[in-house]
Amino acid sequence: MTEAAAPRRGRPGYDQQTVLRRAIELFNRQGYDGTSMGDLAKELGLTKSAIYHHVPSKEHLLAAALDEALDGLSAAVDSAAAAEPGTSAYERLRTVVQESVGILVEHLPAVTLLLRVHGNSEVELAALKRRRRIDERLATLVQAAVDEGALRADIPPDLISRLLFGMVNSLVEWYRPGGPVDPDILATSIATLAFDGLALHEG
Amino acid sequence: MTEAAAPRRGRPGYDQQTVLRRAIELFNRQGYDGTSMGDLAKELGLTKSAIYHHVPSKEHLLAAALDEALDGLSAAVDSAAAAEPGTSAYERLRTVVQESVGILVEHLPAVTLLLRVHGNSEVELAALKRRRRIDERLATLVQAAVDEGALRADIPPDLISRLLFGMVNSLVEWYRPGGPVDPDILATSIATLAFDGLALHEG
Repeated sequence: MTEAAAPRRGRPGYDQQTVLRRAIELFNRQGYDGTSMGDLAKELGLTKSAIYHHVPSKEHLLAAALDEALDGLSAAVDSAAAAEPGTSAYERLRTVVQESVGILVEHLPAVTLLLRVHGNSEVELAALKRRRRIDERLATLVQAAVDEGALRADIPPDLISRLLFGMVNSLVEWYRPGGPVDPDILATSIATLAFDGLALHEG
Repeated sequence: MTEAAAPRRGRPGYDQQTVLRRAIELFNRQGYDGTSMGDLAKELGLTKSAIYHHVPSKEHLLAAALDEALDGLSAAVDSAAAAEPGTSAYERLRTVVQESVGILVEHLPAVTLLLRVHGNSEVELAALKRRRRIDERLATLVQAAVDEGALRADIPPDLISRLLFGMVNSLVEWYRPGGPVDPDILATSIATLAFDGLALHEG
């Protein structure tokens, strides 16, 4: 059989981004702890030694995925903080909610992974710390909107913050890109529900 | 050593409810698939053979846990359906939202387990089917509230349903019984946020 001796053409070569995408998918599907570098190699059609040519470790991929999600969410908060002077806390908050939905939709697999992290390693603990810092900035923005009299004061501000972003984060449970719900309509709908309410109260 | 021959007193005997509580905790902590009957026996301080005296199988415990959560959520929808004639769909929906929060708080570990089920077995598929039926009844109630003109029509009704109960379900991520947030205030706050909105619009 001469075939066996022929050079293996078409052996897949992957760029970093492709390896990362496929790793995140696999982590979400079978859990980070339940996924080995061998599983990832198999998923990519590589040998267990070839996979180390593409990526130094599993934890390296996890860190890259969590950073992707956290960088996106931080940027949404940063851009609200950098809004032109005179922009109310209420307007900033409403913008952050909408932009967070956009980040979540755009980086759905990475954010899904982030939301499932429980702090089982240094990498996960560092991600949780960054996530907490973002949550604190959001809670501060909510408090500022309450203080300026734009938000109702009969719900505790920290509860507002949890419910608001709990609703945003719950998207990972059902939203699928390319599905029937347009991302812009989704972002507007969430902001409308949360700030204006669902009920049509007669005056 | 006479001790070894003495009858082992104080060997733990558990009622079904205690075994179920501890099993649900363990499933939530390390995942249902990642938990063996041996793990559960260890958790309870029983031998691997003694555990089978208490419970026929791991799947039996999962089914009991999922039924607990689903029975509670079904009852919340049933009681809204059984409201006295003349009760608007809007009032019924608002009541279901509040009652769902109560069920979630009261049966937090079982509901947490339910929300993590992915359909990996007959038991899980049956639970997902019951959950879908509940979701359909909720979506029908939302549609009825839109039809009677009580809810805004600029958000698609099925999206309203997903966002509303996505916010309710997100409680499992952070709510802890005995924590600083009172369950009744929590239920009222969620209904207020969702139906009346957070913004204080000047007239």
